[in-house]
Amino acid sequence: MFRQKHLLGIEHLHPQEITTLLDLADQYVDLNRQDVKHSEALRGLTQINMFFENSTRTQASFEIAGKRLGADVMNMAMQASSIKKGETLIDTAMTLNAMHPDLLVVRHPHSGAVDLLAQKVNCAVLNAGDGKHEHPTQALLDALTIRRAKGRLHRLNVAICGDISHSRVARSNLILLGKMENRVRLVGPPTLMPSQIDQFGVEVFEDMAEGLKDVDVVMMLRLQRERMDGGFIPSEREYYHRYGLDAEKLAYAKDDAIVMHPGPMNRGVEIDGELADDINRSVIQEQVEMGVAVRMAAMDLLARNLRAERQNKPVEV
Amino acid sequence: MFRQKHLLGIEHLHPQEITTLLDLADQYVDLNRQDVKHSEALRGLTQINMFFENSTRTQASFEIAGKRLGADVMNMAMQASSIKKGETLIDTAMTLNAMHPDLLVVRHPHSGAVDLLAQKVNCAVLNAGDGKHEHPTQALLDALTIRRAKGRLHRLNVAICGDISHSRVARSNLILLGKMENRVRLVGPPTLMPSQIDQFGVEVFEDMAEGLKDVDVVMMLRLQRERMDGGFIPSEREYYHRYGLDAEKLAYAKDDAIVMHPGPMNRGVEIDGELADDINRSVIQEQVEMGVAVRMAAMDLLARNLRAERQNKPVEV
Amino acid sequence: MFRQKHLLGIEHLHPQEITTLLDLADQYVDLNRQDVKHSEALRGLTQINMFFENSTRTQASFEIAGKRLGADVMNMAMQASSIKKGETLIDTAMTLNAMHPDLLVVRHPHSGAVDLLAQKVNCAVLNAGDGKHEHPTQALLDALTIRRAKGRLHRLNVAICGDISHSRVARSNLILLGKMENRVRLVGPPTLMPSQIDQFGVEVFEDMAEGLKDVDVVMMLRLQRERMDGGFIPSEREYYHRYGLDAEKLAYAKDDAIVMHPGPMNRGVEIDGELADDINRSVIQEQVEMGVAVRMAAMDLLARNLRAERQNKPVEV
Repeated sequence: MFRQKHLLGIEHLHPQEITTLLDLADQYVDLNRQDVKHSEALRGLTQINMFFENSTRTQASFEIAGKRLGADVMNMAMQASSIKKGETLIDTAMTLNAMHPDLLVVRHPHSGAVDLLAQKVNCAVLNAGDGKHEHPTQALLDALTIRRAKGRLHRLNVAICGDISHSRVARSNLILLGKMENRVRLVGPPTLMPSQIDQFGVEVFEDMAEGLKDVDVVMMLRLQRERMDGGFIPSEREYYHRYGLDAEKLAYAKDDAIVMHPGPMNRGVEIDGELADDINRSVIQEQVEMGVAVRMAAMDLLARNLRAERQNKPVEV
Repeated sequence: MFRQKHLLGIEHLHPQEITTLLDLADQYVDLNRQDVKHSEALRGLTQINMFFENSTRTQASFEIAGKRLGADVMNMAMQASSIKKGETLIDTAMTLNAMHPDLLVVRHPHSGAVDLLAQKVNCAVLNAGDGKHEHPTQALLDALTIRRAKGRLHRLNVAICGDISHSRVARSNLILLGKMENRVRLVGPPTLMPSQIDQFGVEVFEDMAEGLKDVDVVMMLRLQRERMDGGFIPSEREYYHRYGLDAEKLAYAKDDAIVMHPGPMNRGVEIDGELADDINRSVIQEQVEMGVAVRMAAMDLLARNLRAERQNKPVEV
Repeated sequence: MFRQKHLLGIEHLHPQEITTLLDLADQYVDLNRQDVKHSEALRGLTQINMFFENSTRTQASFEIAGKRLGADVMNMAMQASSIKKGETLIDTAMTLNAMHPDLLVVRHPHSGAVDLLAQKVNCAVLNAGDGKHEHPTQALLDALTIRRAKGRLHRLNVAICGDISHSRVARSNLILLGKMENRVRLVGPPTLMPSQIDQFGVEVFEDMAEGLKDVDVVMMLRLQRERMDGGFIPSEREYYHRYGLDAEKLAYAKDDAIVMHPGPMNRGVEIDGELADDINRSVIQEQVEMGVAVRMAAMDLLARNLRAERQNKPVEV
């Protein structure tokens, strides 16, 4: 069951759709561990990556995902593009749309820009991060990582820690983990908490010792200095002392709690470098691995629906 | 009938060659509208895109065209390249030539640079725009758009409007439309008209009302401020008032006249935004769609000739 | 016989491994001269090019090589990447490693960076140039060029001339040519000679007339101003007068001596432009051609060993 035309945000997904996607992603994890990592799922389809913000890992992950599925993949360096010549986002999107892409992967600095774009094009749109809004494939890869490490994706206690206010990763994870019936806590300084936090019905902690108590999953966030405009910017040293995850703070969590980080990491700021590399606790590399698989699954499912829609058949997976 | 080794400019093409190319492009339009957009026409061939000027849409169009035909496509970011280390254009071209490409797609800011390069290499060269000289695939895609909208590509009245002097698009279109026996008018301020305009045997108008009278096709051009060095630069407001296409000015043209623009558009400068989006009059999105198909046809035909030449057979398509 | 897991430097290669690689490269030269330049040797494998320094020709050569062998090739623009966000080289490498690449092609400004990286990842790593250390595929393509021009790769007199001290090309060539039992001379101003030159057991000349006397091969180097920090920078005119290769200086070499240059050339600085283009003496274009073939051979051999290792079979080619 996966009925979406686009993957714009976790908020649109039914829990069963999340499960369907993760189940398929599990199969792609197996494929990616083989010698010949190739499927024909997207053969003859055109995938365009439009990144209006730089991102090594996310763009690479989508590019590898598409190529392994046999798509024709094109990267648009949008900063160097016609945008500079005064063209609007929508004109750029309409132009690409006229080239008949099937999958459009978009990252944009403005919240809602990807939704807007999806209304204008005929193909499937994947949100690869829009402003402070959503980053659905990140939440899905985190979910897959958790499910594989913990054996389930429900009734877990998850602490999301650090710079919540600037984080679309936190937002998408909050929504997903809530939908799957987990208990989520937010831990961080009040200055880095979003203002309308009540709507998510989560517990909020200022203190890591309290916040991590008995959790199954510790999800650290990147301190996004590049998104902080003018307001409070903590010193790295002070931040690490109070909110940086190290063995001592992790001891408050469950003994088998896993440590996550969406990357790129600031070692010694959000997280102790040794802990990040500790394969008994950290699943940070697994997150990256799951990323490719989740994106393969998402593009595969969206492509199936696109084909079905084009053939006017009922969309059913 | 298509006997060219390179596609350097419309000026070298016989009318029958233009028809051959457009006929094949029509087939690729159909392919691109299908679910699986894939042919093996260029399988095992190497296409290199060398863009010495940025261009989102043209480079993307050539890249998608090559990939859908099964070529190995490589983009060279020439601004970041050895050119900076003091290497000459010709050395760069010779270096790439030694890697045995089959198709070289080149955009260069200097008129004639692509012709020069074509003399030095063994493969087929496609001009993707050189200075103020030619932009043949743009004229071909415009021709295909017109032919599909009007049912023919001869005995039409076409007005090319705006910044003619800086426009290789205008120049290639003038030549093509003339070869196919259409009547072309140029409309724009005298300061934006080329100096040797008489050679083309076209009518010139300063006034849009007169210039658009009873035309079948209104082809707007981009105001290319980036090419204006020192001379007259009109204010956008004044320019739009006198030369920007809106419903009122379009009323002078035939009732079924189509509106074209090569993009990227300056909405509210050359053209009214609403008119640009009016699918009853504007064929701007079709132009982009035709672009991919025309480039597929051009590369397919050149590759056939290249193969034939290599096998010392008579070149015949 | 080729037992390497990585291609980090010529210093690790056995002479027989060099011969094996060049023999396979000869076959790829033939493939690249055909119309359909395609093999399935790397089908389903993922090749990532990580260039921390710009390089038109080397990156293009590796990209074409991988695509012709059927790999999924991804270029990472490392300057625009997460490195800027404070991520370390190793974190970037580990992230890519988690995406299960098979071949990682790395260029880095620091000597030893590629070796370090190879210790951290599971896939095969190819050094595409690291600081002043090694550039093994350049030495291998030079060797193939020499072997094809001279009919052998032993007992030749080779002069490497110019800016030796900043050149990883010189260093890798010195090692390779020594291993294959050739006599190598270094020719250049003392200020551009490396300090620990004795370890290579080569003759050193300050004067081109003496240095080129009776050599079979004249290998010119690029004057690498971009690597000269603070020290002696010769004037181009003076440098050309004393060390630039022209017909007059070449007359000291054997009558059939070949002229090489790794490119990009500074014409009129290291080498006379006419001599560089003289197809009777210069093999500079052949070097580029051999480059693609040598990289295909190297990646093919490493991929075979990778597969064998994964299947726990003895590595034998």
